[in-house]
Amino acid sequence: MAEQRRVITLITDYGEKGPFAGALKGAILNINPDAQVVDITHSVSSGDILEAGFILSCAYRYYPVGTIHVVVVDPKVGSERRALLISTENHYFLAPDNGVLSYIFAREEIYNAVSLTEDHFFLKPTSHTFHGRDIFAPVAAWLSKNVESARFGEPVEDYLRLDIPRPASIREKAWKGTVLYVDNFGNLITNFTPDEIPLDEQGYPAVAKLLHTRGEITKARRYFAEFPEREPFLLLGSSGYYEIAINNGSAAQELGLKAGSDLGVLLR
Amino acid sequence: MAEQRRVITLITDYGEKGPFAGALKGAILNINPDAQVVDITHSVSSGDILEAGFILSCAYRYYPVGTIHVVVVDPKVGSERRALLISTENHYFLAPDNGVLSYIFAREEIYNAVSLTEDHFFLKPTSHTFHGRDIFAPVAAWLSKNVESARFGEPVEDYLRLDIPRPASIREKAWKGTVLYVDNFGNLITNFTPDEIPLDEQGYPAVAKLLHTRGEITKARRYFAEFPEREPFLLLGSSGYYEIAINNGSAAQELGLKAGSDLGVLLR
Amino acid sequence: MAEQRRVITLITDYGEKGPFAGALKGAILNINPDAQVVDITHSVSSGDILEAGFILSCAYRYYPVGTIHVVVVDPKVGSERRALLISTENHYFLAPDNGVLSYIFAREEIYNAVSLTEDHFFLKPTSHTFHGRDIFAPVAAWLSKNVESARFGEPVEDYLRLDIPRPASIREKAWKGTVLYVDNFGNLITNFTPDEIPLDEQGYPAVAKLLHTRGEITKARRYFAEFPEREPFLLLGSSGYYEIAINNGSAAQELGLKAGSDLGVLLR
Repeated sequence: MAEQRRVITLITDYGEKGPFAGALKGAILNINPDAQVVDITHSVSSGDILEAGFILSCAYRYYPVGTIHVVVVDPKVGSERRALLISTENHYFLAPDNGVLSYIFAREEIYNAVSLTEDHFFLKPTSHTFHGRDIFAPVAAWLSKNVESARFGEPVEDYLRLDIPRPASIREKAWKGTVLYVDNFGNLITNFTPDEIPLDEQGYPAVAKLLHTRGEITKARRYFAEFPEREPFLLLGSSGYYEIAINNGSAAQELGLKAGSDLGVLLR
Repeated sequence: MAEQRRVITLITDYGEKGPFAGALKGAILNINPDAQVVDITHSVSSGDILEAGFILSCAYRYYPVGTIHVVVVDPKVGSERRALLISTENHYFLAPDNGVLSYIFAREEIYNAVSLTEDHFFLKPTSHTFHGRDIFAPVAAWLSKNVESARFGEPVEDYLRLDIPRPASIREKAWKGTVLYVDNFGNLITNFTPDEIPLDEQGYPAVAKLLHTRGEITKARRYFAEFPEREPFLLLGSSGYYEIAINNGSAAQELGLKAGSDLGVLLR
Repeated sequence: MAEQRRVITLITDYGEKGPFAGALKGAILNINPDAQVVDITHSVSSGDILEAGFILSCAYRYYPVGTIHVVVVDPKVGSERRALLISTENHYFLAPDNGVLSYIFAREEIYNAVSLTEDHFFLKPTSHTFHGRDIFAPVAAWLSKNVESARFGEPVEDYLRLDIPRPASIREKAWKGTVLYVDNFGNLITNFTPDEIPLDEQGYPAVAKLLHTRGEITKARRYFAEFPEREPFLLLGSSGYYEIAINNGSAAQELGLKAGSDLGVLLR
């Protein structure tokens, strides 16, 4: 039986237009034309490390065991910044050492971390400005052809971990938190999870009040269609985080909130 | 000989940015890493069921026999809305029961319609808000591995069919119709076909006058380059519908028309 | 051993939204479901032949030997415009005969050029307005199944070559040039290469001054992070061209320059 095709996913801020994502994909397929290359997104906001990390955190776990996730968002490409290969129980991650994998470090046990120093795997000449094409793409391709992680460089332990904003307990039944991400529909994804806001027996969030900088929200529902009014409400989203939504509208726009906005929650 | 790879196409309103399309693709590949997953578009206008249906109607028939088309645009996800698997002579369609497949119902003989109730095929836990990832993706993947349609749920016949706007005869040689879609170039795709407006022996549309809310159009051509003037004209488009175009310009913008705008036509 | 999958890349101005790119991909997979179809971009500015050509020129060479590059940007589709199949040492190119392959003609030895006249390979009926789906897609698919180039039509030599803007020497150590492309980050990619502006021993561009229509630039660096100030500087980009950049900012926006803007350079 033929071996199953290895999946390589891509998250970049290269944009949908232009040659960059295309050149990166070519550099992978040139080494392994049988790789299954999947675009997660090339539309990360330019240089936004936390946004790229959040997108990765919502998508990676649905991929097959052995998937290689390539995340190239790096405002400081070309500097002394190291390039990392991280192995967890089920996946590989290739990314600059700039904190973009912080959600992974927070959630997964790290089996192996390597700084990519073995430059005979790189595309030559290796540019100072396009490590996605010249370093990450060829390493991903060789990895998908079963080259062992350890052969790509030196083990490292001091990789950069950024603080993922976590909810803080204020007092009993009260937490403060933040908006992590605004999705394509304008829903505000918060950093509250069922660890802070439990679901009641009917599956509704046990919240009395959610406070934001422009006011408060008292409605909580299980899914979008359950609250057809044009008024913001709280629901447990598909990523495991609570989100603030308006049915058929943009909560971000109507409330004037964005990634980083402060939130508070009072439980029932 | 190895079996040919099964194609799964995707049409959603998840946007080019964000984790949603990526998570859906992962959930497919996790079950069938050899599936050929093809993005048709993730940029359907948020919640626009008729637009998604129109895009599907212009693309599906060019795909190989056995292709599985997944269309996830659903403002009411999570409600009692059923999830459908529709089989036609050559293709499969997975979509919410909200009318998004109405163009298919109008054009194809439906061999089989199933409501997806066998939830052991679903991703667990199954969210209330992301049926694309949790229901449609795994069902598409199992279907691509030749699980029989009937095993996914109960047969249904009362699925929702929306009225596709059809041209109406006003009197002899006069029809009224509408704009179905505005394409990327600003061309206005109407619902007139050669059934209403025949082509003459030279291949030109046999139209005397096309009336719209802002004026009238008297020019008709066979292809774009045939009418270099910056003035709107009618031509038979590649989807089988007549369209109003301006060479190297946006007819939508210049005429102030959009999907749903009323049209009239007088034949020669 | 199974034969390696053939790669077909796509560059169009069809947009991320809408059915066109999806229909084109379907028409390829219908003939060769094992083709590896790769989107380079569908977001070329509407009808912009030079932009499409530039994007192709930055991406094609990273793809495997035997890759088929399909470039469909053609404001004059449907006219007497010929459709071309060009073979070079390592790649195939399918495009309208409108100059979109001019960068390829300037850089590669052309082994073979064919006008696509054998219409039994085309999709039937063949529309006047969607040659991507009806002509280029099926020819790419048959080519990927090893149909010989010569079978698709007649050899031609008089294909259209547009002038790629080249730097001109003004006097010793002085060149004039232009902006070729503005990338997703707002970097201005010029047509200067190390042939005009050599790198010094430390790897820095040996430039005294770069003149543009709004002022001059005197800083030159090796990579972005080396110049953290919010001030424009010159560096050698990953495509082999010099570019004008502002770290964490858009040089295009801040300088008010765009593709086609005049530049001058004085060497040290």
